[in-house]
Amino acid sequence: MSQSRSIQKLLDEFERLPGIGPKSAQRIVYYLLNTSSIDASRLADAIVEVKEQVHFCPVCFNYATEELCPICADAERDQTMICVVSEPRDIGAIERTGEFRGLYHVLGGAISPIDGISPDDLTITDLLKRLTDTDITELILATNPNVEGETTAVYLARLIKPLGIRVTRLASGLPVGGDLEFADEVTLGRAIESRREL
Amino acid sequence: MSQSRSIQKLLDEFERLPGIGPKSAQRIVYYLLNTSSIDASRLADAIVEVKEQVHFCPVCFNYATEELCPICADAERDQTMICVVSEPRDIGAIERTGEFRGLYHVLGGAISPIDGISPDDLTITDLLKRLTDTDITELILATNPNVEGETTAVYLARLIKPLGIRVTRLASGLPVGGDLEFADEVTLGRAIESRREL
Repeated sequence: MSQSRSIQKLLDEFERLPGIGPKSAQRIVYYLLNTSSIDASRLADAIVEVKEQVHFCPVCFNYATEELCPICADAERDQTMICVVSEPRDIGAIERTGEFRGLYHVLGGAISPIDGISPDDLTITDLLKRLTDTDITELILATNPNVEGETTAVYLARLIKPLGIRVTRLASGLPVGGDLEFADEVTLGRAIESRREL
Repeated sequence: MSQSRSIQKLLDEFERLPGIGPKSAQRIVYYLLNTSSIDASRLADAIVEVKEQVHFCPVCFNYATEELCPICADAERDQTMICVVSEPRDIGAIERTGEFRGLYHVLGGAISPIDGISPDDLTITDLLKRLTDTDITELILATNPNVEGETTAVYLARLIKPLGIRVTRLASGLPVGGDLEFADEVTLGRAIESRREL
């Protein structure tokens, strides 16, 4: 082995990250070897800090470091609308469009019989409780425009429309079969703008 | 801000790494949020460990964690040949070809008047001392096949050939203007095999 053990170990750790192959890992590791110890330990500290501080918001199941996530804690957000998403990362995608000023609810996945994910595995009971306890007038279903996301949206629409709450779905315009996380701001913004009644 | 501060901080830290854009950083951070704390802190620890333990080998200026780097410490390597490279990462590229079993010398760059790098900024004095103190019979110049690398190779050849040591250069066959680090094994292996006298 031509590589020192601790360098090899760091290479291995970076290669385990998504989207990082052997060449990218090598580039990053040599960058870190050349950079100051302060810069490198800032990265290490940030990793540790995130794992120590981040938990799920008890209201919407977004990631949070305070008791509530920054969105639930923000009294200026529209308290009458909830946008339902599969994963916390989808919130970032919608926030970047600037088209939505309401609250969120993270399901923690989507209904998928193949993967053995049933409605009970999602935070649907918590969502229903929120709808009972607060004055929500509209629910936007922003699950991914793929089979699992559509199934989840239809399931939730059937469950919640009888409660007299307006239930909408992101407009088509999103590339079908794709991933909400990777949509561009304009397309996703338009999809929020022209959301349709279910 | 929709993102918790510690998540944003980690995103920023990853975006500063080479080859990592905003989307890649996000993918990695959400991966780390979903992974176990043990896995995440293994990455953090590996970063800290590398910065604490790694220094330059006093003989060849490769990265080392012990007193000598793994190659200088290996008595089974051919002690009569030195392959001269610009950067420690180039050693990895050559080792992967399996064509070279000698020692290395890392210059720490290449002669580049534009960037203000002169021969005095490289480890050339240390190389000359090694050639005097030991029984080296051949020096392979494996600097990059670009302007700076060629300049450095010509400079070293003129300096060292008078000492009666065989001085060779990696064969052309490497894509000119490219980076040695990114050459594929076969091409780089062939270049070592058919190295030419200078």
